[in-house]
Amino acid sequence: MSTPYDTAAIIGVGLLGGSLGLALKARNLADTVLGVGHRAASIDAALEIGAIDEGFMDAREACRDADLIILCTPAALVAPKVDEIFPVLRPNALITDVASTKADICAHAARHWPKPLRFVGSHPMAGSEKWGPEHSSASLYEGCYTIVTPQPDQDPEALDAIHALWEDLGAAVVTCSPEQHDALVARTSHVPHIVSAALAVLAANSDRPADVRPFIGKGFADTTRIAAGRPEIWRDICLTNRSAILNSLDSLLDQLQTVRDLIGEEAGDDLEDFFTAGQQARDELLEDGAI
Amino acid sequence: MSTPYDTAAIIGVGLLGGSLGLALKARNLADTVLGVGHRAASIDAALEIGAIDEGFMDAREACRDADLIILCTPAALVAPKVDEIFPVLRPNALITDVASTKADICAHAARHWPKPLRFVGSHPMAGSEKWGPEHSSASLYEGCYTIVTPQPDQDPEALDAIHALWEDLGAAVVTCSPEQHDALVARTSHVPHIVSAALAVLAANSDRPADVRPFIGKGFADTTRIAAGRPEIWRDICLTNRSAILNSLDSLLDQLQTVRDLIGEEAGDDLEDFFTAGQQARDELLEDGAI
Repeated sequence: MSTPYDTAAIIGVGLLGGSLGLALKARNLADTVLGVGHRAASIDAALEIGAIDEGFMDAREACRDADLIILCTPAALVAPKVDEIFPVLRPNALITDVASTKADICAHAARHWPKPLRFVGSHPMAGSEKWGPEHSSASLYEGCYTIVTPQPDQDPEALDAIHALWEDLGAAVVTCSPEQHDALVARTSHVPHIVSAALAVLAANSDRPADVRPFIGKGFADTTRIAAGRPEIWRDICLTNRSAILNSLDSLLDQLQTVRDLIGEEAGDDLEDFFTAGQQARDELLEDGAI
Repeated sequence: MSTPYDTAAIIGVGLLGGSLGLALKARNLADTVLGVGHRAASIDAALEIGAIDEGFMDAREACRDADLIILCTPAALVAPKVDEIFPVLRPNALITDVASTKADICAHAARHWPKPLRFVGSHPMAGSEKWGPEHSSASLYEGCYTIVTPQPDQDPEALDAIHALWEDLGAAVVTCSPEQHDALVARTSHVPHIVSAALAVLAANSDRPADVRPFIGKGFADTTRIAAGRPEIWRDICLTNRSAILNSLDSLLDQLQTVRDLIGEEAGDDLEDFFTAGQQARDELLEDGAI
């Protein structure tokens, strides 16, 4: 099923928004793509690569005539931005987002936005430690898992349409509740990110960088790669997925404390079991070797 | 300065040992390379790729006539293996190793081996989550930092020779004390590895792998890549670098507990500062973009 839109408005024209614009146009899913940025430079960059047809600083102006609106802002801005544009939207406008946390946004939608909800939360598992529209790619969403979060009081046609949109963009769509989504990404993405940043800080701790550099291998480069991500994005993720992150972080802290004790006790067999469990867990989770 | 050897014996013909054999021969640093393995299959694989000229199961037999002996076993086996071969060694034989921990081995050398020491600890910052001689490469050590650890009662000529050996293999040599080495790699390698394994275990925790897989992104793949390493290697590293690892792990646990509290308190600015510190630390440590 194809999902053609007259006018798509993308709020936030960074890597994810810019790539969406390119993909919507490359796949003929929207006649016109409007982009909203809060810096003129981002808008210019998105225009230059052809990700958007017209740029706006004012979200209301861009969304007035849009039949598809996609929020590509940091997570904490999604709900306030939708609050801001709702008064000017066409009644049938379809709204989705690409934020990494879903429960807070969907709860806000349930409380504040007209029913049946034409908002459907999405989270494409795409992205990179790079950012900015200049790294955009029309193929960013191809073959990428995208989580879509059904919720009560949602217009079933809106849910179908957003499901189809992501499939038309080449993504593999999986649905689950916002809460289940947040619990899972806390473990697979948010806590790993926090730990990655903490490892970078630990390694840099107190020595001159030049003295530490010879001791940096590929393993360190890999484990800390995501620490290069944008601080404000991750601040927002922590704030909008607090309870799931605290839960997972506590599990991790317990596990690390156990390993600490095993090292203290020189419990070689138990340590080997722990590393074997880590090896097996990774093998199972990345079985298809896709990443 | 070139460092030619008549007979080099490599004890342990995995990825590191196999690559050493290939590199010694490619760079004409040894006339004959003998390999010691504890499995016939490893020896056969090393022979097949031309990493060694002859294979042995008995280390004493291989080392009897060697003027250069390189231990490429897991860390905990280095000292016992050298104890085992010492009775048959030529008096001038030069000994080094490639283990990831140095203080324990060097302390054992100081206590038990003849002075002036012809043993010089080495740690090339090479390797990968892959293992086995079939992944060997003659260029593994090219451009790779290699730490060489001077210690009291060491024959200065032996230290010079091992330093020159690594340079002849194309490595960038850095010297520091065994203790300083161990403290630094605890932070840059050992604790990251422990954390990587713990993150893999956390993500796999309690759900079916198929349910978790859609939530796995590139960030998770990167942070857990080293968890695919060999469990017995990492068990040995934990056992032979206990105090430095416990030290670094405690610092990391403190840091993560602090971040946990910041999330609990919704301290947005402090969280952003933490992620900024992680980003800056990584940028500084990987400044040259070499990895």
